[in-house]
Amino acid sequence: MVLNDYFRSSASFRVRIALNLKGVSFSQVSHHLRRGEQRLPAFTSLNAQGLVPALETGGVVLTQSLAIIEYLDDLIPTPSLLCADALGRARVRSLAMMVACDAHPITNLRVLEQLRATFGADEAAIAEWFRHWAVQLLQAMDCRLSSEPETGAFCHGESPTIADVCLVPQALNGERFGVDWRAFPAVARVVERALSLEAFRAAAPALQPDAEL
Amino acid sequence: MVLNDYFRSSASFRVRIALNLKGVSFSQVSHHLRRGEQRLPAFTSLNAQGLVPALETGGVVLTQSLAIIEYLDDLIPTPSLLCADALGRARVRSLAMMVACDAHPITNLRVLEQLRATFGADEAAIAEWFRHWAVQLLQAMDCRLSSEPETGAFCHGESPTIADVCLVPQALNGERFGVDWRAFPAVARVVERALSLEAFRAAAPALQPDAEL
Repeated sequence: MVLNDYFRSSASFRVRIALNLKGVSFSQVSHHLRRGEQRLPAFTSLNAQGLVPALETGGVVLTQSLAIIEYLDDLIPTPSLLCADALGRARVRSLAMMVACDAHPITNLRVLEQLRATFGADEAAIAEWFRHWAVQLLQAMDCRLSSEPETGAFCHGESPTIADVCLVPQALNGERFGVDWRAFPAVARVVERALSLEAFRAAAPALQPDAEL
Repeated sequence: MVLNDYFRSSASFRVRIALNLKGVSFSQVSHHLRRGEQRLPAFTSLNAQGLVPALETGGVVLTQSLAIIEYLDDLIPTPSLLCADALGRARVRSLAMMVACDAHPITNLRVLEQLRATFGADEAAIAEWFRHWAVQLLQAMDCRLSSEPETGAFCHGESPTIADVCLVPQALNGERFGVDWRAFPAVARVVERALSLEAFRAAAPALQPDAEL
């Protein structure tokens, strides 16, 4: 499999974790988001949206990180990244989507660039925008993880699911903007447990071939 | 089942369509988003995120529209809102998530309110922000629907899936900001086909008990 990604992309980070958890070896093609390489025809012919990640496998191109991860879970059922029962799957997906639908999209690079272009937002305003949404997410996530009985060592039970796969990149990527996930005890416990696994650590931005530190 | 919703919420609109397609009868409790009722303790005790929709069923509360819809599809497999094969499911989910992750969250009410509060955005700037992301989505969606062979009368094949369930509310809600989905031929064909079904039409904002027209 070939993963089209970018080291700092939170959505790519998710797919890297899932590939690692599933034990899939993959090569990477980097598209430098800050230089706009994802908008070049060489990439938009793969993904009309011009967004990473895009996973090439068996002659097809899969897009949207959670759709890719659900596909990997279909293809390689063990270890499962969902849950055996329908209510559990609903909880796992809802935790994942709190990140993937309600936090990350509002603070990703293209939105921050649009804030600069449209409203002349300076770096302080950009950081404040990021923090507003990132903290709101961490508060709601911490509330759920600390109060819902299904929470275990991970977001749901005793093994990693797509909820952890989404939460860890969201937490770590917030550090650049001064958002401290360690201030949220239930989140911190789960993130630290996930980061005890090599599959999560090896997917981190700083360890990717295209990393710029 | 009890659906906590708001007539104009695009994510609630999705769940209404899915409930209708599955033939589930449900009652509705409206939370007036413009008055901030979703942030009152009566609701945040149901959903810590303070967002609609939230579906109450059998003593549990399900949140996140796509997680709710996947749960309904688990519970009531026919008619399926996904696809029988894994690659098909990946395509259907990726089309749905183009809307649910990359378009709608950036333009929903709480983000528009934050643009007003943070950058003093006026109504013209708000409308321009909305149109920027809504048109970008429709362009990418039209490109995929017109070029990918799996597109049928609906987004994927000959029956509605979660892709249509997401696309129709996105298209119709854009009308308020002057975004014309009819200008995108492949999108228009699919949306019109979906709207030929009572399940989609009956879920429209204007027909909800809390509608303000």
